[in-house]
Amino acid sequence: MIVWNTLTYDQQKQALSRPAQASADSVKEKVSEIIRAVKARGDEAVLEYTRQFDCPSLTSLTLSTTQLAALAQQVNRETRLAIQDAYTNIKRFHCAQEQPSVVVETRPGVVCEQHTSALESVGLYIPGGSAPLPSTVLMLGVPAQIAGCDNKVLCTPPNAQGTIAAEIAFAASLCGIEKVYLCGGAQAIAAMAFGTQTIPKVDKIFGPGNRFVTEAKQQLSQRTDGASMDMPAGPSEVLVIADDQANPEFIAADLLSQAEHGEDSQAILVCSSQYVIEQTQAEVERQLQVLARQNTARAAMNNARYILTDSVLDAVKVSNLYAPEHLIVQTDDARALLPQIKNAGSIFLGAWSPESAGDYASGTNHVLPTYGFSRTCSSLGLSDFVRRFTVQEISQQGLTQLAETICVLAAAEGLDAHKRAVSIRVQSLQEAAK
Amino acid sequence: MIVWNTLTYDQQKQALSRPAQASADSVKEKVSEIIRAVKARGDEAVLEYTRQFDCPSLTSLTLSTTQLAALAQQVNRETRLAIQDAYTNIKRFHCAQEQPSVVVETRPGVVCEQHTSALESVGLYIPGGSAPLPSTVLMLGVPAQIAGCDNKVLCTPPNAQGTIAAEIAFAASLCGIEKVYLCGGAQAIAAMAFGTQTIPKVDKIFGPGNRFVTEAKQQLSQRTDGASMDMPAGPSEVLVIADDQANPEFIAADLLSQAEHGEDSQAILVCSSQYVIEQTQAEVERQLQVLARQNTARAAMNNARYILTDSVLDAVKVSNLYAPEHLIVQTDDARALLPQIKNAGSIFLGAWSPESAGDYASGTNHVLPTYGFSRTCSSLGLSDFVRRFTVQEISQQGLTQLAETICVLAAAEGLDAHKRAVSIRVQSLQEAAK
Repeated sequence: MIVWNTLTYDQQKQALSRPAQASADSVKEKVSEIIRAVKARGDEAVLEYTRQFDCPSLTSLTLSTTQLAALAQQVNRETRLAIQDAYTNIKRFHCAQEQPSVVVETRPGVVCEQHTSALESVGLYIPGGSAPLPSTVLMLGVPAQIAGCDNKVLCTPPNAQGTIAAEIAFAASLCGIEKVYLCGGAQAIAAMAFGTQTIPKVDKIFGPGNRFVTEAKQQLSQRTDGASMDMPAGPSEVLVIADDQANPEFIAADLLSQAEHGEDSQAILVCSSQYVIEQTQAEVERQLQVLARQNTARAAMNNARYILTDSVLDAVKVSNLYAPEHLIVQTDDARALLPQIKNAGSIFLGAWSPESAGDYASGTNHVLPTYGFSRTCSSLGLSDFVRRFTVQEISQQGLTQLAETICVLAAAEGLDAHKRAVSIRVQSLQEAAK
Repeated sequence: MIVWNTLTYDQQKQALSRPAQASADSVKEKVSEIIRAVKARGDEAVLEYTRQFDCPSLTSLTLSTTQLAALAQQVNRETRLAIQDAYTNIKRFHCAQEQPSVVVETRPGVVCEQHTSALESVGLYIPGGSAPLPSTVLMLGVPAQIAGCDNKVLCTPPNAQGTIAAEIAFAASLCGIEKVYLCGGAQAIAAMAFGTQTIPKVDKIFGPGNRFVTEAKQQLSQRTDGASMDMPAGPSEVLVIADDQANPEFIAADLLSQAEHGEDSQAILVCSSQYVIEQTQAEVERQLQVLARQNTARAAMNNARYILTDSVLDAVKVSNLYAPEHLIVQTDDARALLPQIKNAGSIFLGAWSPESAGDYASGTNHVLPTYGFSRTCSSLGLSDFVRRFTVQEISQQGLTQLAETICVLAAAEGLDAHKRAVSIRVQSLQEAAK
């Protein structure tokens, strides 16, 4: 247990530090190699890598609409209802994020507007693994659908039998995703960024993934022939702020739900009660015994931090310094703390708002900034699937009245032709008036 | 003149291509060296570079509030009124961009919210050069001020006398910017990204600059100890869509106002009338003669493209392919074309809306995506100075009803502890009910 007020500034910084994130050179080089191969040989390269890493017998990268529909129907009733329920809530929340157009007559005859327009082509990457991730399909697919992105391209690695989980197919179908391709890793990211004979080029790529996927997204977002990316990714994190009334069983369960993601998951408790911290630590040990992913969770919990502060307000300050991805606030009147909370991706208020709820079904998006990026990056939302552009329409009268200001500023900045583009029009109006 | 319908697909792609943008290795290495030096030696390194590149006799990096105020008062009346006028219009338009909070009860007892919060510390970079850029101070400073960013840090290189232009000081004071530091180039970007003894660390850096500044922004945005950046920068661009009624004098003036920025400026006319194209070409030649920046503009116009299309709608398609930074539409009923226009940073409708108006005073922001990034990036706005985060508050009842969905999905994804974080709460409610 760390007693916050006994630490020096440097020790405090150290206590909240995150593990170094730089991609190993070997990862960078491998990814560069894969990107080069896909750029040069398109489908052929993607199929080669997919046969090498995922399914040796794969013959086609495309999952047809018929195959998708057949797979979707295989989902059992209980799971189907759950996915539909989550879809409904996520859709409801994301629909409400729509930004209306802005129209302002900044001065008579000078109308300025801001509009949003859906990105035309978006790439949604869904990692493979021992268990399917239908929740991630929803988190990416729902805003893409609501925004009205014309082309929604989903890439996910096939299993050894050359197909994908029924849950992925079902979630994709709810989101109106028709283009699903069987590939993963850096090769999938490169394929979507460049476009291949089969896989459409996209403007922006969304979705989590391993180090190779993350490195590929970063390299390709730097290239003018590549694609933008959603946000930088790092190990998942939860910070719990708790007071002396908090329930240690609940806290432990929340820390462990984070820890089971991976050994590098970040779990931090910041609490104003030593008793609650000690009880939580005992609960963590107790609950670990019955977890399926006990080894992973235990390894992550070995890096967990239990921080004792003098007060709940001090706990909030610690959280603001750390800038967590997920922030759970289990205190008396958690909502009252909201104005003090500065940096967090998604905030969970009260004892009945476990992080799992946000991960799956409350309606909020589970794609959130990690690694302290919650200081500047936003949680994923509808805005990430559209772009904002401006329009101005100026009348003859409006330009005549704005002319002096533009010409004086252009002259001050030494931009002669900028000034002339206005004066030529003003003169033409004066001549017409004669 | 390029006749669009005679070109093959590849020739069309070539016609709209932009010059290669990759930073020379020498630039990357120099910038890496500067970044390392500033990281290691802070103020000392920044002062060294500033003495080397800008003002050999500089003793302090800070411009005090008194010095700033004194400088601001030196602006002549005409320029002061112009800056104030532009400020008013820009402020009016950006204030209207404010996003209200979103609160949705996605299902009974499950409340999801989205809020915005100003970035705490922002860095505004204003390049030096032969003429000051007060307009850029406004374009960055106004949204920072409206958003409520606590720390607004402005860096701009000093002139050889160790001071800055009065216009910069005045524009900065209008925007409530109090922290102005005398440094430029990659060293200024690094100083703001890391923080030094004198210069505060910022979360995000905004502003244009030369290749060194751009490279520094990119390198530092990749580092977890760095700072985010506004958007990728490239040579400025204008594309004009015109029909047979358009005024060739106006078109020529608009193309030239872009060309005078630099030799690599992009100027493109896409027009459905051969006559108007020919007249415009003649006008460009005529107007070039009287330009102060004739050499620069002429060099840029040597790369200008004049594209003849069969119709105005075809011209719009060409523009969508190019995805220009600035798009001027000089056609009959320009507004009617708006729904067809896909990708452009800022659109100027009609004969009386020159690009200069948007650059200085209409109210829109002149920081816009170049290099085709208008396909995915937005024009700079209030949103870029805030971050969006989500909140959920779930009642006991809400969690009880959401529990099944969360548990089924968590089980499907093999995330046991995620499920238990919910079941432990549901069980506790059931026990309390007995």
